[in-house]
Amino acid sequence: MDRRPIGVFDSGLGGLTAVKELRRLLPHEDIVYFGDTGRVPYGTRSDGTIVRYARSDMDFLLRFDPKRVLIACGTVSTVALKVLRREYDLPLEGVVEAAAAAAAARTRRGVVGVMGTAATIRSGEYERLIRAAAPSVKIVSVACPLLVPLVENGRTDPEDLVVSTVVGEYLAEIRAAGADTVVMGCTHYPLLERAIDAGMDGGAVLISPGREAAERIARALERDGAGNAPDHAGTSAYYVSDAAEGFAAAAERFLCEPVSGVVEKVDVE
Amino acid sequence: MDRRPIGVFDSGLGGLTAVKELRRLLPHEDIVYFGDTGRVPYGTRSDGTIVRYARSDMDFLLRFDPKRVLIACGTVSTVALKVLRREYDLPLEGVVEAAAAAAAARTRRGVVGVMGTAATIRSGEYERLIRAAAPSVKIVSVACPLLVPLVENGRTDPEDLVVSTVVGEYLAEIRAAGADTVVMGCTHYPLLERAIDAGMDGGAVLISPGREAAERIARALERDGAGNAPDHAGTSAYYVSDAAEGFAAAAERFLCEPVSGVVEKVDVE
Repeated sequence: MDRRPIGVFDSGLGGLTAVKELRRLLPHEDIVYFGDTGRVPYGTRSDGTIVRYARSDMDFLLRFDPKRVLIACGTVSTVALKVLRREYDLPLEGVVEAAAAAAAARTRRGVVGVMGTAATIRSGEYERLIRAAAPSVKIVSVACPLLVPLVENGRTDPEDLVVSTVVGEYLAEIRAAGADTVVMGCTHYPLLERAIDAGMDGGAVLISPGREAAERIARALERDGAGNAPDHAGTSAYYVSDAAEGFAAAAERFLCEPVSGVVEKVDVE
Repeated sequence: MDRRPIGVFDSGLGGLTAVKELRRLLPHEDIVYFGDTGRVPYGTRSDGTIVRYARSDMDFLLRFDPKRVLIACGTVSTVALKVLRREYDLPLEGVVEAAAAAAAARTRRGVVGVMGTAATIRSGEYERLIRAAAPSVKIVSVACPLLVPLVENGRTDPEDLVVSTVVGEYLAEIRAAGADTVVMGCTHYPLLERAIDAGMDGGAVLISPGREAAERIARALERDGAGNAPDHAGTSAYYVSDAAEGFAAAAERFLCEPVSGVVEKVDVE
């Protein structure tokens, strides 16, 4: 048994989709979330800046003595995971690694679509990791720059003409290639899961990076006997680096439930 | 005659719509543009941070000894213009002031629509300034958070279903109120001028903040006899605080012509 919390961080609020999955899988665990809303977005920063930000995010979470950390930020998972693993002496789970492994394992026809932000697609990291696990898989990667703004403005309804049109455009090439598995390669995208599913005519397995990383952590705790007490009701605490006002309303979109627990603004710089 | 250049700054590239207007009105002037692409967006920062950023933007432009500065950033114009006017001893023109004055002067029916980012609309600054100039004007303000992402992804064609649907939604309340004048209250929006015009059925005067501010500067130079030599072919120099690669392609959308002149990355922090 290990009563210490699980730490989660992201550049903003998208990582709350991972918290939602952790909460579902691990109801007895305490979760500490840090969203670096004061320095979002990370995707446009230089690698050096991203590593520096990631270190300060980690250092903040270490105050809570977490047993594991889930890096819910695709940019940090891509750019800084190796450095952080070298520098920090606790198990780190990155969303990109987890989702790439799941996609490689689940495709039957050997064709995987990857949706991501422009920076994620440009990095080629999903392709590299999927190919490392399954060299013969055909991968079609599509930058989907309008999806984050749509989600952040609450436009997620598959019946919304703007949503279905934009999602349909982004999926066109992935459908044409015959993909049976699609990576929703940004923590915001699972909020569009129904629209993406509709855009694939229900014919593809959709991979949520947050869900995959959460499942890896659940399996690791099980394996190590490192879960919290089974009679403990897990708590959640949320920290952000910009104004905490408005956090609850925005966070509920990602968590799909009211925010319970602490919400506090902190300075990590 | 005053051979010194005109300085222009913005948090990103949107301010290039003002450069385009300056270039059109003042072909003999040298223009120095600074886009703070490394710290964009400003709209989500605290007032203190915005003032600090604005000072460093001004200090950078002062290296070129400008005769006037056009503040093409709506957030800085709203939050920091007064402070900057107090601290810097040269004439400053803000896009918000210029556009609000133009809207108040041009409405015939006394109903003005204001489109802006969430932060701009929340600030109430357009309403305050329009009302100060024309107290009886009815103002309908609408936050249009999806328009910047659309423009930044090159989605500006009025025939694009996503563009016409989104623009149509945002204009619904402005149309219903009977507005005859619409402020395109963000430097990105003039790229959607044709779509906004179509959304108003061609029935409204559209106010471009960059154009209004540029016209004020042109009038001031004329009045003061402070133009450059009439045989001088005006030059443009562009500076950004994040990677300069990709600048030309993105900038051309705003300038509506190829980028000529220097493009350089600088560190202003």
